[in-house]
Amino acid sequence: MEKINQLKTEFTAFMDAVQFDYQPSELYAPIVYTLYQKGKRLRPMLCLLTCEMFGGKVEDALYPALALETFHNSTLIHDDIMDQAPIRRGLETVYKKWNTNMAILSGDAMQALAYDLVMRTPRSIDTARLLSKVHREVCEGQQYDMNFETRMDVTIPEYLEMIRLKTAVLLATSIQMGAVVAGANDADQQKLYDYGIAMGLAFQLQDDVLDCYADESVFGKKTGGDIVENKKTYMILKARELAGEEDRYALDTLFSSSGNMDRTKKIAAVMAIYDRLHVKEAAEQAIGEYFRQADLLLDSVPIPDGRKELLREYARQLLGRDK
Amino acid sequence: MEKINQLKTEFTAFMDAVQFDYQPSELYAPIVYTLYQKGKRLRPMLCLLTCEMFGGKVEDALYPALALETFHNSTLIHDDIMDQAPIRRGLETVYKKWNTNMAILSGDAMQALAYDLVMRTPRSIDTARLLSKVHREVCEGQQYDMNFETRMDVTIPEYLEMIRLKTAVLLATSIQMGAVVAGANDADQQKLYDYGIAMGLAFQLQDDVLDCYADESVFGKKTGGDIVENKKTYMILKARELAGEEDRYALDTLFSSSGNMDRTKKIAAVMAIYDRLHVKEAAEQAIGEYFRQADLLLDSVPIPDGRKELLREYARQLLGRDK
Repeated sequence: MEKINQLKTEFTAFMDAVQFDYQPSELYAPIVYTLYQKGKRLRPMLCLLTCEMFGGKVEDALYPALALETFHNSTLIHDDIMDQAPIRRGLETVYKKWNTNMAILSGDAMQALAYDLVMRTPRSIDTARLLSKVHREVCEGQQYDMNFETRMDVTIPEYLEMIRLKTAVLLATSIQMGAVVAGANDADQQKLYDYGIAMGLAFQLQDDVLDCYADESVFGKKTGGDIVENKKTYMILKARELAGEEDRYALDTLFSSSGNMDRTKKIAAVMAIYDRLHVKEAAEQAIGEYFRQADLLLDSVPIPDGRKELLREYARQLLGRDK
Repeated sequence: MEKINQLKTEFTAFMDAVQFDYQPSELYAPIVYTLYQKGKRLRPMLCLLTCEMFGGKVEDALYPALALETFHNSTLIHDDIMDQAPIRRGLETVYKKWNTNMAILSGDAMQALAYDLVMRTPRSIDTARLLSKVHREVCEGQQYDMNFETRMDVTIPEYLEMIRLKTAVLLATSIQMGAVVAGANDADQQKLYDYGIAMGLAFQLQDDVLDCYADESVFGKKTGGDIVENKKTYMILKARELAGEEDRYALDTLFSSSGNMDRTKKIAAVMAIYDRLHVKEAAEQAIGEYFRQADLLLDSVPIPDGRKELLREYARQLLGRDK
């Protein structure tokens, strides 16, 4: 839709106008490098669309939207150190391009910047509180994710709670932030927040499915990465749940193999089990559930249906349900 | 003075009552470990004393004071990774006791906590803004400090700007925060902030002197650590400034030696030059200047002199000028 592209253009122009040319330049170079890479600007867009939906002033939401993008990127810089991930979005990660110390410190400075930016709006105390809440939750999510690395017995409810904290709360907060800026009441804010959680969970599960089943030419990277890295995702956890004793033993053996196993063979072996157990269908059912739940929550917000179309359309695009 | 001890006791009791028993426990264990070590609680004390000085409600300053302590400790956790420092206050540092990832993440969570805590007071938007400003400045100071490691040509003004950002601004902000909570006007806040900067610079220079000249039984650790680590401090920079060509060459040679030089010999060689050039006296003169400047700033605050005695006394104690 035209209006979605227009908001994206407006936000991009705003970002380009904001200069982070502070001193010392060594500190801000990794920040500018990270923040000005091309991206969907998902969190800013959710914030702006929601502000627009409630009839708020979009210009009051621009700084909070940038704060969300800045904060999100600060977590990526620190996560990439923790995960020792050399590449993100096709480019070297900060700790790899500079070093670990620079990645720690510029990530910290970005967190400081995020708070500075989030308060540049009339309802600044509310936006600041939202940021500090989500800031802590995202750390908690990352900790659960790290805890899961060494556990084979992670349950699906535990996994959902982890991705709620690690991914969904920031999307939900982005949406709520737009509502806050527009002056929405607490009840409506809560509905939008819950909507964001449901959408965020659907979005992450979709990611888990795509990592196994995406068309590589569209996905932009090789599929099977989560399997190779023994990453706990909905796919493996659901597979373990659905599996009989034999398949579960096979999965556990495959998922405890270190880097010495042939990549292609490992992926093929795991995927054969996923296919047999219909894990993809189970995941898609869960995604559909969250999607419907989100839809109902959005329906229940007492504003004219027409105003909700933009956000609904954007969410559909995100989840590839716009065709 | 009785009242100073009383505020310290009150703050300690408050800290003990605040529990950080959140989940996941793995994330919060390093936070509790760091925050509940015995300490001077310098930043909280400055905040509480200033609030008291302006006749504010000390109970409104308790959470902001804890926020300052929490934030300060988060920077220590990250700095210790960057400096690869295994010991602090006689205990293992977080990255050493746990690991680097835990130190990054728990430091991040502490920053989030600091913002949460700083807003638990009636003038929350002002206290939050102060924290985000100082948060960025401290990162900038740490960056300058890192830049200086590989430079021999650091000037004294550059060094003072670095310690202003790395150390003094947080002390000044702690003092200003107390004034903000008490509802002091902008002009008085500024005077107190400037007072804090002057005190902070004096405090750091004192530290630089003590690292060379302290009585080890009082200092609690061996002197000469900065010399052994080739650390840029006021002492070496002033020495280079005062030195003739021969001494400067000797200092530069000593300060580019790696770990293979005998510790005792290196310290003795450097100290002989410091003594000859009267570097200690030069540093003490600078400290005295800042101290007098601070005194004048405090004098100029238009409240009864009697109310200023607590803060004045506390600062004197800190700088060992209370005898």
